[in-house]
Amino acid sequence: MYAIAKTAAEPGAHMIQRDPTPPGEGDVLIKVTATSICGTDVHIYNWDAWAQSRIRVPLILGHEQAGIVEEVGPGVTRVAPGDHVSAETHIYCGRCYLCETGKPHICQNLEILGLDRDGSFAEYLTIPERVLWKNDPTVPPAVASIQEPFGNSVHVAMAGEVSTKNVLIMGDGPTGLLAAGVCRTLGASRVWLAGLLDYRLEVARRLGAHHTINAGSEDVVSQVLGWTEGLGADVVLDMSGSEAALKQAIALVRPGGRIIAFGIPSHSPQLDLAAVVFKEAELMGVVGRLIFDTWHQAARILPLVDVTAVITDELPLRDWEHGMKRMVQREAIKVILYPDR
Amino acid sequence: MYAIAKTAAEPGAHMIQRDPTPPGEGDVLIKVTATSICGTDVHIYNWDAWAQSRIRVPLILGHEQAGIVEEVGPGVTRVAPGDHVSAETHIYCGRCYLCETGKPHICQNLEILGLDRDGSFAEYLTIPERVLWKNDPTVPPAVASIQEPFGNSVHVAMAGEVSTKNVLIMGDGPTGLLAAGVCRTLGASRVWLAGLLDYRLEVARRLGAHHTINAGSEDVVSQVLGWTEGLGADVVLDMSGSEAALKQAIALVRPGGRIIAFGIPSHSPQLDLAAVVFKEAELMGVVGRLIFDTWHQAARILPLVDVTAVITDELPLRDWEHGMKRMVQREAIKVILYPDR
Amino acid sequence: MYAIAKTAAEPGAHMIQRDPTPPGEGDVLIKVTATSICGTDVHIYNWDAWAQSRIRVPLILGHEQAGIVEEVGPGVTRVAPGDHVSAETHIYCGRCYLCETGKPHICQNLEILGLDRDGSFAEYLTIPERVLWKNDPTVPPAVASIQEPFGNSVHVAMAGEVSTKNVLIMGDGPTGLLAAGVCRTLGASRVWLAGLLDYRLEVARRLGAHHTINAGSEDVVSQVLGWTEGLGADVVLDMSGSEAALKQAIALVRPGGRIIAFGIPSHSPQLDLAAVVFKEAELMGVVGRLIFDTWHQAARILPLVDVTAVITDELPLRDWEHGMKRMVQREAIKVILYPDR
Amino acid sequence: MYAIAKTAAEPGAHMIQRDPTPPGEGDVLIKVTATSICGTDVHIYNWDAWAQSRIRVPLILGHEQAGIVEEVGPGVTRVAPGDHVSAETHIYCGRCYLCETGKPHICQNLEILGLDRDGSFAEYLTIPERVLWKNDPTVPPAVASIQEPFGNSVHVAMAGEVSTKNVLIMGDGPTGLLAAGVCRTLGASRVWLAGLLDYRLEVARRLGAHHTINAGSEDVVSQVLGWTEGLGADVVLDMSGSEAALKQAIALVRPGGRIIAFGIPSHSPQLDLAAVVFKEAELMGVVGRLIFDTWHQAARILPLVDVTAVITDELPLRDWEHGMKRMVQREAIKVILYPDR
Repeated sequence: MYAIAKTAAEPGAHMIQRDPTPPGEGDVLIKVTATSICGTDVHIYNWDAWAQSRIRVPLILGHEQAGIVEEVGPGVTRVAPGDHVSAETHIYCGRCYLCETGKPHICQNLEILGLDRDGSFAEYLTIPERVLWKNDPTVPPAVASIQEPFGNSVHVAMAGEVSTKNVLIMGDGPTGLLAAGVCRTLGASRVWLAGLLDYRLEVARRLGAHHTINAGSEDVVSQVLGWTEGLGADVVLDMSGSEAALKQAIALVRPGGRIIAFGIPSHSPQLDLAAVVFKEAELMGVVGRLIFDTWHQAARILPLVDVTAVITDELPLRDWEHGMKRMVQREAIKVILYPDR
Repeated sequence: MYAIAKTAAEPGAHMIQRDPTPPGEGDVLIKVTATSICGTDVHIYNWDAWAQSRIRVPLILGHEQAGIVEEVGPGVTRVAPGDHVSAETHIYCGRCYLCETGKPHICQNLEILGLDRDGSFAEYLTIPERVLWKNDPTVPPAVASIQEPFGNSVHVAMAGEVSTKNVLIMGDGPTGLLAAGVCRTLGASRVWLAGLLDYRLEVARRLGAHHTINAGSEDVVSQVLGWTEGLGADVVLDMSGSEAALKQAIALVRPGGRIIAFGIPSHSPQLDLAAVVFKEAELMGVVGRLIFDTWHQAARILPLVDVTAVITDELPLRDWEHGMKRMVQREAIKVILYPDR
Repeated sequence: MYAIAKTAAEPGAHMIQRDPTPPGEGDVLIKVTATSICGTDVHIYNWDAWAQSRIRVPLILGHEQAGIVEEVGPGVTRVAPGDHVSAETHIYCGRCYLCETGKPHICQNLEILGLDRDGSFAEYLTIPERVLWKNDPTVPPAVASIQEPFGNSVHVAMAGEVSTKNVLIMGDGPTGLLAAGVCRTLGASRVWLAGLLDYRLEVARRLGAHHTINAGSEDVVSQVLGWTEGLGADVVLDMSGSEAALKQAIALVRPGGRIIAFGIPSHSPQLDLAAVVFKEAELMGVVGRLIFDTWHQAARILPLVDVTAVITDELPLRDWEHGMKRMVQREAIKVILYPDR
Repeated sequence: MYAIAKTAAEPGAHMIQRDPTPPGEGDVLIKVTATSICGTDVHIYNWDAWAQSRIRVPLILGHEQAGIVEEVGPGVTRVAPGDHVSAETHIYCGRCYLCETGKPHICQNLEILGLDRDGSFAEYLTIPERVLWKNDPTVPPAVASIQEPFGNSVHVAMAGEVSTKNVLIMGDGPTGLLAAGVCRTLGASRVWLAGLLDYRLEVARRLGAHHTINAGSEDVVSQVLGWTEGLGADVVLDMSGSEAALKQAIALVRPGGRIIAFGIPSHSPQLDLAAVVFKEAELMGVVGRLIFDTWHQAARILPLVDVTAVITDELPLRDWEHGMKRMVQREAIKVILYPDR
């Protein structure tokens, strides 16, 4: 099979040819129909400090995917050849304290697809049955593939309990943009999104944001305080991990409000914790998706959000580097790769 | 009446003589039977940067108190002369969004006793009826006075949902020590307290902490990780506001765990927010006491916690400066002042 | 002024003429611009067993209303003549345990407008300032008046945490119909409504219900089990109080699901509590509106729900009995009375 | 091996001899060291209407147990021979909606030990690995066996959020009595228990109940209303399933309070649902134990509750019928059977 792999501890990646891994006990071999590029893949491609410390080569990249079951290993009973599936990318151990208490997505022994084991930028993927989600076969492969980041947005918005709330979203990456659509669908009263790229802010509005703010040229703080008569936003969703955004999140959340921290800061930000205390604000980390609560929720509201609004590129797998470079340049939002085209 | 006041924008305070403020519409005049010194009073006495930016002189200091209703102003109906009372120290407006939605303790227009208006280090105190709590007359004045910091500890522990949990308390001030007693009473599984002063750690153990750690000479992180087999504490209560403690709180909270931030950092700490995200931890600011939910809760468990364990000094009001200096030196934990002795 | 009052302990009511009550301390005199008929008013008009046991005559009927402040009594500061307002109809004492702990809507000493004191079917209404809600002056009086039952629907749907859920609504009264609209707005995945009158089921669909069931001629249980592949509904909102509906609610809620009981049964129903236990279902009573949390929420989503869909009749106050009779016959859903027409 | 089995569809049971079931894929063979009699076993022994409708013969009875792993089947990795274990008695499928969303204890395809498959009144028990809980080897077998009903009490008390609350427990069976101990441990303010048998009420007081009421000879309603100044209890735990108790639960829960329904009524009770609505009370079904959240919680507080207080009988397995008859007569509370004595 063809696959996109990092073969050396250096920037870049290569298309390679290898045999698929035959499915062992409890494993499933999936023919990948679509796989999409995430910001994490860009970090690995760029081989930045985080990637250098986290990734061991050789490694097939990619984790967002959709496919069709090709073959099942011994003991597999939940899926059968021909089933349309996507895989939850957080492969949990099933035995630790967190797994035993209903939180496998923050398992103590997590293995992440495309980071800790070979990923989905390939014609075939072998993965444990227990993380498989059955897709409705009528959902297009591209949409099925971006259920994974859409699930992030759903998990974030549900954790934010956004219904009837004024919500400020920080960040114009795909999960931020999709969060705008999810918040509207869940009945947020007002949805504001602050980002840096005008073409993305337009997508945010298309997905339902009432207002967008170009954080590069406009004053986020004064606008939000103006809109809320000085009170601040009920909920702030940080989808950026930027220190500036996190500082604004704390400044702008209202007393008794909630900040969801989803973006991963590249270094430890300096934060006005005294304000968090005096406001009795909640700052809640959110990661991945609840397995499988979030998948069920996402599947239910998928018809209500135009997730295709974030798809800017659809390419054959062999043209992956064109897509990756557009991601690096932030010219693309979500790039879909098709191994079978 | 005699009162302890800051009369000039400079370190220190003085005993002054003045008339009590006659109670206006909705106000109550209270004869103070006991009033206790809080860390906040020490900041004001020392006239540190925070106090300089926050306090306008002249001001009678003090906010923790107990007393007896002496006289009621027009329109007062909930209390009558002779009633034993303490006052909630967060005087809310009753009209803002937070007051209208059940969160008066984080009112947008809070006035704090002894900070924004004359306080309780005095023979008499005039205060709005709406913040009065009726005390059981059999509760000694000293205990009634420290209900206020005890209420902080109760609010913190209830927000931490500590029942059956492993709890790490950071800080050996009175609210940290009392939190140890509250956590035990609420059925925490293990209660650990990290502080700096051995005589206070002994009080923590007396109040029920299973283990104490001298954070100056022992390694908090390795001890807690050892006790929890590498998992971390279910709940961390930061009662210190120290940057070092907050960093440890984030390092030591388990995935899916909760940090309660109650201590006020003097500057913005640099925090590993990526760990908060990956652990899906909750960092919740907690301030004051829920009005009056926490007062009811505190009254109910007051008989179950030996709150007198934190009282190190009981003095006539005129000897206030001796008590204050012992607070400055951290030789005292809680100093009770009696205006009528 | 003219008013509609029950003057004797017998069926019916009469238009009377009387002076408005001058506003006392803390009271506000309101010129009523619209007032609407609730099912409770119908019970009182019919003088059924409940009404006979609950109501003392003479009494001006009515509680849903909107108006303009005409005059304020001493001590009133939140509103001024000319303000557009509606009154929360649960007049709380402000002093009991429930009021002290953020739940005034279930105050131990509740006085209900139009039940325990003279109501709003009148040209003028005198009411304590503390229950007044300021309306946006651009909201039409009819809509402002039905904020009260709309608030019921919002409170019910928020208690049901309906986002992403499959929701079954039992009952085609105004609060049931409005709940359909609210659930859609809050992102419920599927909304089903069971009722008895086809013209009302049509309104339910207009407000957003995906499916409606005529419970008189169709089998509610088999339909819902079919739609959910035997699992049952995530949330059931009982807006009817009917024993048959409550039995179905228990039969149809999924394991781990939630039933909101809002309708008031006229007698104690026999319920399969063993099923509630084995399913670990939650059966939560919901009444009135959170003061003022629900009012804020309702105001925020009011623009998103076509509440006028339930208004079937708009009449001058003097034609009240025509509207009342249409309510008795269940020919009307919501009747608006205009005192100034 | 010897085992106690129902061999015919009629009252009674017999000691039989048969081979243990060899452990299949994922199964574990356990040498039973202690097993205890539950009220459910009494229903099956008595062959009442419920048992006749639910149980298919032949069946080895019993589900509460503790033992030592004797042999593991293929694919078992979490336990090894020699491990001390107890089995969660709700054997979940792992594939249904409830299992997929963190609620396996209310799985749609539950198989219950000793009801749907051979139980633990035997020298050996074969059971799937996934429901095994590792015991601390220092915990005596009798205590390890009653972790199962103790877990019920923990699940109930945690669902009741009893810390600082006034709690009324209805029922003097083992789970009711243990709930008294758990509520005290979790910091309930006052714990009252109503039952019928004085010797059990004494056990309740030994476990920490502040007051007990003999519901046969004393007026539960007037006592609780008296103790709470007419307000009612914050939380009522129904551990009886009796219609009279459930009616009192609704009458006695305070506005905004919570009723936990754990006891299984033998028929549908007639309940004052209007009171549930007007009080905005919560009536929550609770069943089994959260898997494994409750097991962790129970293990953590096991040292804090004197669970042996409910053990009235300890017998060799062969004397099972003596113990069963004492259960039928309600002379025993909890009977421990030892297969190896």
